Amino acid sequence: MLNTAHVNILRLINQSGPLSRTQLVSLCGVSKATISALTADLLTGGMLVEDEVVYGTGRPSVRLALAPDSAFFIGVSLATHPFAAVVTDAGGTLIDSHDIPDDKTPATLVAAIAQVVTNIRESGRIDPARIAGIGIAIPGLVDAASSTCVRSTVLDWRDVPIGAMLAAETGLPCHVENDANAITLGEHLFGSLRGCASGTLISVGDGIGCGHIIGGELFRGARGGAGEIAHSTIQIDGRPCLCGKRGCLDTLASLRSIAGRARDKGLPGTVAELDVLASRGDHDAMGILHDAGSALGLAVSQLIQTLDPERIVVTFDGPADGLYARVLRQTIDTNVMPHQPARTDILLSAFEQSAWGLGAASVAASKSLFRL
Amino acid sequence: MLNTAHVNILRLINQSGPLSRTQLVSLCGVSKATISALTADLLTGGMLVEDEVVYGTGRPSVRLALAPDSAFFIGVSLATHPFAAVVTDAGGTLIDSHDIPDDKTPATLVAAIAQVVTNIRESGRIDPARIAGIGIAIPGLVDAASSTCVRSTVLDWRDVPIGAMLAAETGLPCHVENDANAITLGEHLFGSLRGCASGTLISVGDGIGCGHIIGGELFRGARGGAGEIAHSTIQIDGRPCLCGKRGCLDTLASLRSIAGRARDKGLPGTVAELDVLASRGDHDAMGILHDAGSALGLAVSQLIQTLDPERIVVTFDGPADGLYARVLRQTIDTNVMPHQPARTDILLSAFEQSAWGLGAASVAASKSLFRL
Repeated sequence: MLNTAHVNILRLINQSGPLSRTQLVSLCGVSKATISALTADLLTGGMLVEDEVVYGTGRPSVRLALAPDSAFFIGVSLATHPFAAVVTDAGGTLIDSHDIPDDKTPATLVAAIAQVVTNIRESGRIDPARIAGIGIAIPGLVDAASSTCVRSTVLDWRDVPIGAMLAAETGLPCHVENDANAITLGEHLFGSLRGCASGTLISVGDGIGCGHIIGGELFRGARGGAGEIAHSTIQIDGRPCLCGKRGCLDTLASLRSIAGRARDKGLPGTVAELDVLASRGDHDAMGILHDAGSALGLAVSQLIQTLDPERIVVTFDGPADGLYARVLRQTIDTNVMPHQPARTDILLSAFEQSAWGLGAASVAASKSLFRL
Repeated sequence: MLNTAHVNILRLINQSGPLSRTQLVSLCGVSKATISALTADLLTGGMLVEDEVVYGTGRPSVRLALAPDSAFFIGVSLATHPFAAVVTDAGGTLIDSHDIPDDKTPATLVAAIAQVVTNIRESGRIDPARIAGIGIAIPGLVDAASSTCVRSTVLDWRDVPIGAMLAAETGLPCHVENDANAITLGEHLFGSLRGCASGTLISVGDGIGCGHIIGGELFRGARGGAGEIAHSTIQIDGRPCLCGKRGCLDTLASLRSIAGRARDKGLPGTVAELDVLASRGDHDAMGILHDAGSALGLAVSQLIQTLDPERIVVTFDGPADGLYARVLRQTIDTNVMPHQPARTDILLSAFEQSAWGLGAASVAASKSLFRL
């Protein structure tokens, strides 16, 4: 069994990449003998492997890396159509992927997921004894502690103990997380927020998701509502939103609202298509992209003023150098207080559909491997 | 010397009030023998005292309380005019208060503070050997780790190692903190955010300060800029702000901006005076208070959507049932997403000038007593 000191070493190596024993001694603040004993346990247990030899001023030292095949995680995304299950290894790499029919009835869904888990176990692609757990990403409000979906409009669920149901069916530890939080955790453990003590991920899709890393951990808020910036009011007396309010960020900057406004003007609805039209001088297309980029930019600037995160990652399905992205960056620049000693690092990246499953798998990794 | 387990007991009793040994056993998850030994150390050292006897189902048990006179803290506020130094005890109670001439030259200021510290030590009101440290609240950006003021426009300081300077002069541990963060810490340790795992304090004064408690600790952001909501853009193309931008929350909702707008209309400038005029139907007064309350309400609603804190405390120098306060509450209600499972607890309270000094003293308490 791994103790806290072992897990701490795994976390450090995951965050920093391969480390020598000497580096671990200084990072952990414990003796050389302690690190030797702890790393020996992890090497024997197959959690670590010896990586390249580093030649420095003293004796050459071997760096220790996580053994990718020491643990596998299953990530179930209920945020995609169809639902999906992926398998990742201890390094967060995608190993395998399966569609799941998106039947929303909890009992039949659990049976379908369990069948996929059986297929994964019997596939021969990974050692089934090393599957450490299942993470489930849910579009809605979850209680992570009890692995329950408290409420999901998309799934039409209320108080569904999906974690316990799937654990009973598969015999594996199951953890649930809100979909935006799952993606944020995935980026923190294995992606663009790796190593950040604080950071925010904003995913612009049909809706707008947002999750925060604070103090090196996911911050869910007092009632699981942190990151609901989609329903921050950006435009007083703006368009009606599905949530019941007006002028929410979602009504201006989500891909669904962009497509809706484009349709109203008889235009095609993707950001890429609108970008092409805008570059040819189409005023309607320019207006829609300007409104969307500036609404999101304003929300991001307010987030920087409120939290001062180390990095903000915005993922969206559109060109990173198009009008939406340019207006976004410009609006952030205009609305963040001048004279800040250093600026928040803003990263724009393309959204990959696989992110949902990878995020879900990282929920299992965070609980089972890194005990976060 | 106190170890982590001792400090944990002090923290728990400070957050919850007096606790029995049985309660400590269950809260700390350690054995009865361990708690007996740890509390015996703290009673012998004078950190704890036996409080009232509680009669329950089993044997009557004695509750243990923090001994108020076991430690004293000096809080220096550079956010007030004149500057001030206060003395508090281990329970956060104000014991003594002194003005300090607001000479902003670091060397002369340090000498003046050191003189006040000498006076406090020689006053006979507290045991000078039990002064555990000094906290300094600074209007500006600080590096708490090095106890340095990085930049303060108000003080006209840049990179002033005020903590080290005052420590050298007094022989006491000195810690610096941004003024809004110091007040937030004070409320978390001893006031309206006590016991909250997450919470935000917003102080509306000449300017608007804001600090966050996240995971039971002060969250400063990656570069000390968390809580700078005063310069969140609330009104696109709004009034110019001193910071260089337009439409900042500060330009609408701070007492300075309210007084400025009132002056422009030939009206008296305090919220209380404007409230009286508004209640008599003065449209200008109503407009100013409406703009101020709704700007702050919008910012608070965005903060709730972003962070979902357990509680938000707004302190301001005006009537808690006046127009500003009513519009504030109404705007929050209108702009927070409906169907949230439970609402953030919003507390409006009158701002007391002594809060700056008390906040500064709590910075010393957090470092020296609770090691936060």
